[in-house]
Amino acid sequence: MNARILDTTLRDGEQTPGVSLTPDEKLRIAIKLDELGVDVIEAGSAITSEGEREGIKKVSSEGLKAEICSFARAVKVDVDAALECDVESVHLVVPTSDLHIEHKLRKTREEVKELAIESVEYALDHGLLVELSAEDSTRSDLDFLTQLFKEGIDAGAKRICACDTVGMLTPERAYDFYGHLSKLGVPLSAHCHNDFGLAVANSLAGLRAGASQVHCTINGIGERAGNASLEEIVVALYSLYETKTNINIGMLYDMSKMVARMTGVYLQPNKAIVGENAFAHESGIHADGVMKKAETYEPITPELVGHKRRFVMGKHIGSSALKQRLEEMDLPVNPEKFNQIFNRVKSLGDMGKCVTDVDLQAIAEDVMGIMTEKVVELEELTIVSGNKVTPTASIRLNINNTETLEAGIGIGPVDAAIVAVKKSVKDFADIELEEYHVDAITGGADALIDVVVKLKHDGNIVTARSTQPDIIMASVEAYLSGVNKILSDSGVKKIKKSDL
Amino acid sequence: MNARILDTTLRDGEQTPGVSLTPDEKLRIAIKLDELGVDVIEAGSAITSEGEREGIKKVSSEGLKAEICSFARAVKVDVDAALECDVESVHLVVPTSDLHIEHKLRKTREEVKELAIESVEYALDHGLLVELSAEDSTRSDLDFLTQLFKEGIDAGAKRICACDTVGMLTPERAYDFYGHLSKLGVPLSAHCHNDFGLAVANSLAGLRAGASQVHCTINGIGERAGNASLEEIVVALYSLYETKTNINIGMLYDMSKMVARMTGVYLQPNKAIVGENAFAHESGIHADGVMKKAETYEPITPELVGHKRRFVMGKHIGSSALKQRLEEMDLPVNPEKFNQIFNRVKSLGDMGKCVTDVDLQAIAEDVMGIMTEKVVELEELTIVSGNKVTPTASIRLNINNTETLEAGIGIGPVDAAIVAVKKSVKDFADIELEEYHVDAITGGADALIDVVVKLKHDGNIVTARSTQPDIIMASVEAYLSGVNKILSDSGVKKIKKSDL
Repeated sequence: MNARILDTTLRDGEQTPGVSLTPDEKLRIAIKLDELGVDVIEAGSAITSEGEREGIKKVSSEGLKAEICSFARAVKVDVDAALECDVESVHLVVPTSDLHIEHKLRKTREEVKELAIESVEYALDHGLLVELSAEDSTRSDLDFLTQLFKEGIDAGAKRICACDTVGMLTPERAYDFYGHLSKLGVPLSAHCHNDFGLAVANSLAGLRAGASQVHCTINGIGERAGNASLEEIVVALYSLYETKTNINIGMLYDMSKMVARMTGVYLQPNKAIVGENAFAHESGIHADGVMKKAETYEPITPELVGHKRRFVMGKHIGSSALKQRLEEMDLPVNPEKFNQIFNRVKSLGDMGKCVTDVDLQAIAEDVMGIMTEKVVELEELTIVSGNKVTPTASIRLNINNTETLEAGIGIGPVDAAIVAVKKSVKDFADIELEEYHVDAITGGADALIDVVVKLKHDGNIVTARSTQPDIIMASVEAYLSGVNKILSDSGVKKIKKSDL
Repeated sequence: MNARILDTTLRDGEQTPGVSLTPDEKLRIAIKLDELGVDVIEAGSAITSEGEREGIKKVSSEGLKAEICSFARAVKVDVDAALECDVESVHLVVPTSDLHIEHKLRKTREEVKELAIESVEYALDHGLLVELSAEDSTRSDLDFLTQLFKEGIDAGAKRICACDTVGMLTPERAYDFYGHLSKLGVPLSAHCHNDFGLAVANSLAGLRAGASQVHCTINGIGERAGNASLEEIVVALYSLYETKTNINIGMLYDMSKMVARMTGVYLQPNKAIVGENAFAHESGIHADGVMKKAETYEPITPELVGHKRRFVMGKHIGSSALKQRLEEMDLPVNPEKFNQIFNRVKSLGDMGKCVTDVDLQAIAEDVMGIMTEKVVELEELTIVSGNKVTPTASIRLNINNTETLEAGIGIGPVDAAIVAVKKSVKDFADIELEEYHVDAITGGADALIDVVVKLKHDGNIVTARSTQPDIIMASVEAYLSGVNKILSDSGVKKIKKSDL
């Protein structure tokens, strides 16, 4: 069995409330989707707006390998708008449930069928490939639905699609439903929504039953609870069903990050396949197992999807994970000291805290009576900002016993502070800020703010973080902590307190 | 068919990397879970740490209706730790796959079976109810697994549980697997993980096949990609399978919010059932349909799960949704003006912007030549902050033509600014900051920051937001925009420009 993928991130995905992509953003995502290997890119719904048409046109004129498709309702203006965008195909949608026909369109079944057939013919006459799609098909009268598809196929539709518009299928019903429709003689698509968390399972059931294509989106974004998630379907097909797709699985994590960034729809850490925790381990039992043999607690390797394994230290940490982490940090300890460190990590965990590498280093060094000399020390930071003041920061640092004093301006106080820090360190190392991520951990204006920075130096990426109620201090401390790691790696000085 | 719910938010959920709950937080969540109606609360793994035992003890001594359970490995120290916490039952876990037995435990099948039986007997002798659970059961030799369960039942285990530890089941395999085990004569639990996005579908298949209980967590949190999500299972059972649980479905949204807040694991907006977008509509077709008849695009009502419907304005908006929104905002317009407003909203959408109520009001008023007098105007804001400076803000406002000047200090510059704003407005209205939420919409130190505040006045909640690269300005503007709404509602002044 082989499965085709129609990606609708740029159409149903973009209909996620609050998401709006510019024409250039659409193009960039489309280019990456093409590289990923999707068979069809539904680039938008051409009737939506002028900007939408500009975006679809950019995608269709890029010469991508994928078939470029526009959504269209079964009305002439929609097909005309799609034609204006030079797409190869239309996803031509007509509601088939009485609920939609009577309450939304205020028409009869016969009228809707006529509209569908006329639109198929009109689109065909203008050179478009037609995928005739039934909206709310899973709440439709099956005989009417089947009849409409048959007449649509006779009129020239090359593919049909049945949408589970409000996600009411179960895997069992999906199997029967798509099995029935797959006998109509043309390729069939399953288009599933996730209102009950079953979109992926229903899509897989559809494919097993004889559908040849699924509609899905990166990260499962889309209306309400979203669409079936491309990455989950593709990896489940690969790992659990031995079914091939044309997807380059190793790109999935990157693709997911790009879509999250551009749409602003960030993922929860426990999102399957591509979430930040998908391959993270904290508990002692799990981390210990993974270190002995990764398959014990990982169904696939993180590398398969371009992701990374991560161990997190907290109250559930086990001794082997902590030992390994200390060794990785070049901090070998004897059993007695190890127990002291282990207990301090656990008790921080009990207080609701998560222990970062920096914390662990501090604990270990304290227990071992070791002191790592900080290469960079923050002496003084001052920020002035306001609605009539250009955000300005001055910063005095001690770097390798040399004092620096720099000022920076920015579009906000955080930006100003980072500009000043960058100026200060640039004579010591060539460091680029690759990523800056801010999260409020708690609520309220005095919330704890967690800042994570990724700094690049000599081709290596260093991650550092700081958690504080003051966002500016958290940003500067995270940045400086990263700089410290970079500078001390090129001349690390570890002095035992007793040597002092 | 009736299904029992074992909630493991406090055990497997808390094992989410980076999550750690204090004993008091555990208790608060447990009390709410009890109110929600879960049958069993797995309150933790007693062996983990001193703080964990304190948390479990608090839960077990609260006199809740639910059965209180602790996780325990099949070793005496774990059972002893559970006994110390006065729990009613243990979820007694023993690995059954050769992968786990050989590589993690470095034992033989026989040794593991003996350990299991001894532990069951030990726990029983000490008055515990035992749910004997097989870890990685879905990659185990089925004959060995069945034999182990049989001997465990003979030894006194009252329930058995088969864990799909790395989420490798499919709904079809789950049906066969749990169907087989359900014939062993004692109640069977399905414990499913979500590595391929199939945890909910597999749990439902397990129940259909004869399992009587599922293990799940609020929001599906847990190791890696998490566990099966309680809210998705319960609502799917209710809506799609006509199966009863003891869960009070109307509390699900509140329960989800509480767990997100306490664990810091925030949901993606498109999370099924409880995500912020689960009942949000942007596209014209959808919003129009929902306004005519909600069932067209909503499988269940938001009220069923204690959630709310929301319309979002962006480039996909249709004319009926926009018309309704303008009417709700008391801004009736003629068709010509309406088209102007509609086009401006669409073109903002094309530029990647989402239109808030405040934006819409401004656009509409501009098009209609109406001006709503702002009651509060920001004249001047100045912030000083740094590592050796107490974060200080001064703010000059014009409130109802009265000038105020106040200063505030805080634990960070945002806090200081909000303190100063609060002081300034307190003579005009009694306003409480109920909620403050900050999100980085884009990446980078110059990221767009989105601040949402909820202000309380006279028992009403007003929501306001501002999106800017400067977090302090965004916070102050969001707060002031909320104050404006409150103050102008108590004496709104709408003046036609031509009247001026």
